[in-house]
Amino acid sequence: MNRMPVRPENVHQATLLRLLRDGNRSRAELGDVVELSRSKLNLELDRLIEMDLVEQAGLAASRGGRRSGMVRLSSHLRFAGIDVGATSVDVAVTNGELEVLGHLAEASDVREGPAAVLDRATGLLDKLRDEGLFTQLHGAGVGVPGPVSFREGVPVAPPIMPGWDRYPVREAISQKLGCPAMVDNDVNLMALGELHAGLAKQVDDFLLVKIGTGIGCGIVVDGRIYRGVSGSAGDIGHIRVDDQGPTCTCGNTGCLEAYFGGAALAREAVRIAPRSPHLAERLTLAGALTAQDVAAAATFGDAAALHLIRDGGRQMGQVLAGLVSFFNPGLVIIAGGVASLGHVLLAEIRSVVYRRSLPLATGNLPIVLSELGDTAGVIGGARLISDHVFSAS
Amino acid sequence: MNRMPVRPENVHQATLLRLLRDGNRSRAELGDVVELSRSKLNLELDRLIEMDLVEQAGLAASRGGRRSGMVRLSSHLRFAGIDVGATSVDVAVTNGELEVLGHLAEASDVREGPAAVLDRATGLLDKLRDEGLFTQLHGAGVGVPGPVSFREGVPVAPPIMPGWDRYPVREAISQKLGCPAMVDNDVNLMALGELHAGLAKQVDDFLLVKIGTGIGCGIVVDGRIYRGVSGSAGDIGHIRVDDQGPTCTCGNTGCLEAYFGGAALAREAVRIAPRSPHLAERLTLAGALTAQDVAAAATFGDAAALHLIRDGGRQMGQVLAGLVSFFNPGLVIIAGGVASLGHVLLAEIRSVVYRRSLPLATGNLPIVLSELGDTAGVIGGARLISDHVFSAS
Repeated sequence: MNRMPVRPENVHQATLLRLLRDGNRSRAELGDVVELSRSKLNLELDRLIEMDLVEQAGLAASRGGRRSGMVRLSSHLRFAGIDVGATSVDVAVTNGELEVLGHLAEASDVREGPAAVLDRATGLLDKLRDEGLFTQLHGAGVGVPGPVSFREGVPVAPPIMPGWDRYPVREAISQKLGCPAMVDNDVNLMALGELHAGLAKQVDDFLLVKIGTGIGCGIVVDGRIYRGVSGSAGDIGHIRVDDQGPTCTCGNTGCLEAYFGGAALAREAVRIAPRSPHLAERLTLAGALTAQDVAAAATFGDAAALHLIRDGGRQMGQVLAGLVSFFNPGLVIIAGGVASLGHVLLAEIRSVVYRRSLPLATGNLPIVLSELGDTAGVIGGARLISDHVFSAS
Repeated sequence: MNRMPVRPENVHQATLLRLLRDGNRSRAELGDVVELSRSKLNLELDRLIEMDLVEQAGLAASRGGRRSGMVRLSSHLRFAGIDVGATSVDVAVTNGELEVLGHLAEASDVREGPAAVLDRATGLLDKLRDEGLFTQLHGAGVGVPGPVSFREGVPVAPPIMPGWDRYPVREAISQKLGCPAMVDNDVNLMALGELHAGLAKQVDDFLLVKIGTGIGCGIVVDGRIYRGVSGSAGDIGHIRVDDQGPTCTCGNTGCLEAYFGGAALAREAVRIAPRSPHLAERLTLAGALTAQDVAAAATFGDAAALHLIRDGGRQMGQVLAGLVSFFNPGLVIIAGGVASLGHVLLAEIRSVVYRRSLPLATGNLPIVLSELGDTAGVIGGARLISDHVFSAS
């Protein structure tokens, strides 16, 4: 088998592969959506079958005349999604339709540096290979928790990733796995995951807000990630909420992240623990508190914890209200570890956004919690690289 | 002559027309940038010449071999740009390259309603026709100072345009002028004008902030206007600056427009007039004050006026800093009547944005004042409709 798998030879083949990524189709159905003559369509499909990217899948139900042949992506197509987090690494292997065939996660400190962390990721992929999920990958998409030069495939001055600055992540993964690879910011990958398999499936323009240790935003315009001119678009953690706020790690005061996000919540939880029996108990046991502890306390109706969540939701909502007025998205998805704060958080965010954004922008705007959870990033990784592999070379 | 002019027959012809919109080219130069064989290229060009959309323009300088024939857009192509403002209407007629051949403006109160205002606009165009600038228009682009359903070509619940809600502006203009027409928000048209003829010529992703009576923002993504899902993208006037701010016309407190913009400046100028000899004198003479009066006072070094401008610039800068972090544009252009406050305003906006936005987003970010002034909107109108006319039908 080739080390570097084949790519489509022209835009027609690329379009057909992307259509089939969303599921099997009959030749007749494909003919309805692509602008090709019947004979040219069959020519391209036959060529894709020869190239082992597509296979026959029986006959479609009759549409009145002769039954049309079904086709699907080759069943041995495999993509990998690798989601490097601050404290964990997730890997998944998907088929051509980006359905997750296997998903493994491991605790992993991003501060150990790229060599150790990427070895851990490929080690997890080795396990999935040993389970027989694949022999050859057709591509891998990697997400990292920091700014990325998408064109070069390297992290750029990532604040929480010592040792990763300009490390050739794309090249390293591509060489290790023997397939094309691409690297992006983890939040962008989550947005792509939602676009492919989540609540954003039918939405062209949307925002995915990840509230984890930090806060970031994936921006999708016309079904594609918008990265901005230097790749930092969506970096909303340091938008100003207030001039009188706490000092932020960035040196300014009153940034969103200084108020909210995992790190701020953990700090605030310790501060209010004396007024919260649940948090006080947990603090004594564990020596520290996390957003999950606040969520757990809120579940028991703990007033101090609920107050903390509402406060954070209000600050988040104020920033988001401005972004909604500016961007007029069709959907806002809230994701990330802090999203475990759940519906109390969501209710507060909604209340501020619906009150403070323009009616025209919020009239039909759903604000929802992600339903994909940890798989958003790895599905997004597979989606990213499949967009590349399923494009004309 | 046809009432409804011809449109290109295929995407190749459309691409050639758009390339020629940026200036004359030789057949050889066109061959370098379009993916067509030499013979197919000449076939399409000859067809465009037959259709009277393109004409021969002599021979190009030699590139070593036989001299290539120059072509240009047909010299009788004419587009109209119509920019309906709150208190004025501007019209211009351009050639195919969108160079302004004639530009007229008149005081006009948008509150008189669509029939009166559109009659005034077409009356101005009649004058330009009488001057011999055109016999037949090939398209007209119209900007109005409020939200627009771009698809339907109608204003939607525009706050300062009584009588215009859902008025069929596109149909009315198209019928009056006998050519295709399109309607958009005035700020979007200004952004298109900057993209075609202003400082944004080489920039794919940028923001145009118009500070007039109200405050709005045109968003350009990948060389195209981003309108959002309900057409309200860029409506930044009601983004929150502060919870303790003045009450806004929208019912919320602390909106950007309640602090800054023409209306807020006029109000604040009256309030500070007792402390400003220049403004006091002007107020006595005119009975009211405008942003231009504040600008004039500042030119004389009036401390109270300068303070007002700096305060406004700071609020504007705080909102813009957040948008720059979020959108990571390649350029920010400040335009509109209040931009006459000039470099004091610009300095304050820059200082806040460069301090508060992410370094990665501001590293190479110019923030500049528009150089097109009143022609941005009308050139943008011509650009909008030429994009439509120069697309495959």
